[in-house]
Amino acid sequence: MAANVQDAIMLLGDSLTQGGWEPNAFAQRLSYVYARKLDVINRGFGGYQTDWAIPVFEQVFAKQHEQQHVPKVRILTIWYGANDASPAPSPQHVPRDRFKANLSHLVQMVTSPTSAHYSPDTRIILITPPPVNTYQWDSRVFDVTKSYAEAVKEVGLKEELPVADIWTSIWEAAGKDEKSLSKYLSDGLHLTAEGYDIVFTSLIKIIGEKYPEVHYDKLQNVFLPWDSVDFANPRSTLGKRDAMLA
Amino acid sequence: MAANVQDAIMLLGDSLTQGGWEPNAFAQRLSYVYARKLDVINRGFGGYQTDWAIPVFEQVFAKQHEQQHVPKVRILTIWYGANDASPAPSPQHVPRDRFKANLSHLVQMVTSPTSAHYSPDTRIILITPPPVNTYQWDSRVFDVTKSYAEAVKEVGLKEELPVADIWTSIWEAAGKDEKSLSKYLSDGLHLTAEGYDIVFTSLIKIIGEKYPEVHYDKLQNVFLPWDSVDFANPRSTLGKRDAMLA
Repeated sequence: MAANVQDAIMLLGDSLTQGGWEPNAFAQRLSYVYARKLDVINRGFGGYQTDWAIPVFEQVFAKQHEQQHVPKVRILTIWYGANDASPAPSPQHVPRDRFKANLSHLVQMVTSPTSAHYSPDTRIILITPPPVNTYQWDSRVFDVTKSYAEAVKEVGLKEELPVADIWTSIWEAAGKDEKSLSKYLSDGLHLTAEGYDIVFTSLIKIIGEKYPEVHYDKLQNVFLPWDSVDFANPRSTLGKRDAMLA
Repeated sequence: MAANVQDAIMLLGDSLTQGGWEPNAFAQRLSYVYARKLDVINRGFGGYQTDWAIPVFEQVFAKQHEQQHVPKVRILTIWYGANDASPAPSPQHVPRDRFKANLSHLVQMVTSPTSAHYSPDTRIILITPPPVNTYQWDSRVFDVTKSYAEAVKEVGLKEELPVADIWTSIWEAAGKDEKSLSKYLSDGLHLTAEGYDIVFTSLIKIIGEKYPEVHYDKLQNVFLPWDSVDFANPRSTLGKRDAMLA
């Protein structure tokens, strides 16, 4: 069984998060740069929206009384909107006001001292949905997804959290031309490696600026680099350490 | 904090395992195919050999009394030899007999009913070190690494465990020509994406043949596919499930 030795980065979201395990996508790249420091726990569920995220998050994010046994979540990304923005009567549709309320609810589960899941040590980053290329994916509406991206930024302001505004970053990278989004979106909705590069770069920039103490460059390996092991008495130097420097 | 919702695949080893987080390497690809079913926990430590692996494994693999709180390790890969095969007096050198004894010790920590770490539900796969290209990496000896790969197979026989013999698979893929190993080894010791493809393919083949009940095709998503959610009463269908079918 897997003992609790490394703290974690948790990625909560929909298919855009689940797809983070593709080569060069953001879960893979975070795992690579945080190797031996923090584990990456991908809790992306394709097709899900924020109504369904709440009962799931209640189960995947431990309650306070369980926290002594499980990895601390040092960084949490919350990334929804791509499905919430589906037009009614799609079962994935979540009205914009409820989408905002749901996102705030997810955040406050972690940040509110009265929450059973309260975790003041967890640093949260919100991510906006990317723009949609309706030439490729015709069950979404460009301006609706844009308004859900803006809703994420409004929640970020209200909850005083940093937002990786990849809607704007990808839109600008595509020269504000919807057809040119195909470089960043494989099918109009899901990201290519180039799209994920913008997500990864944006997250690392935010971590460096807002949460520098958990940037991978500021963490140490939980187990010593091999050439620091005491070769005469290795066991004396092979105890696990906290990745965070005191 | 990260609640215990998905069981795990643990990868124990040296830099070849740590590098599993590279794009298209085996940790990334396992994470992708097992998404929403099993988490991948990479416990690869660059430069380590089996003498040092033992005190580390005692900490990263939970003891029986801790197991109720932590993810079950459904599959465990153990992959050493590349550093153990360093010639003396390198501090990484582990004599071949002790290398075999260390590997058996790691295995028996999991398989022995008298072990504090006993975990009969964990399926173990041993992996041989790859051949070394001494034209590129001159601090190893071709035939010595080969003999350590054979040692892994001897331990597999003794412990009755499947072995991913990637030494032989890569050697044959290279046409048994040392210089042609450069397709599979970036620097003579570490694997390219083509080398990792052989590792991944070998592991999936062994899982399918020896441990089919934990092949990703035989597992279900811990949380329902979105289009199976009860849209009228979503919470009733959003409880976590065991990935393994009864």
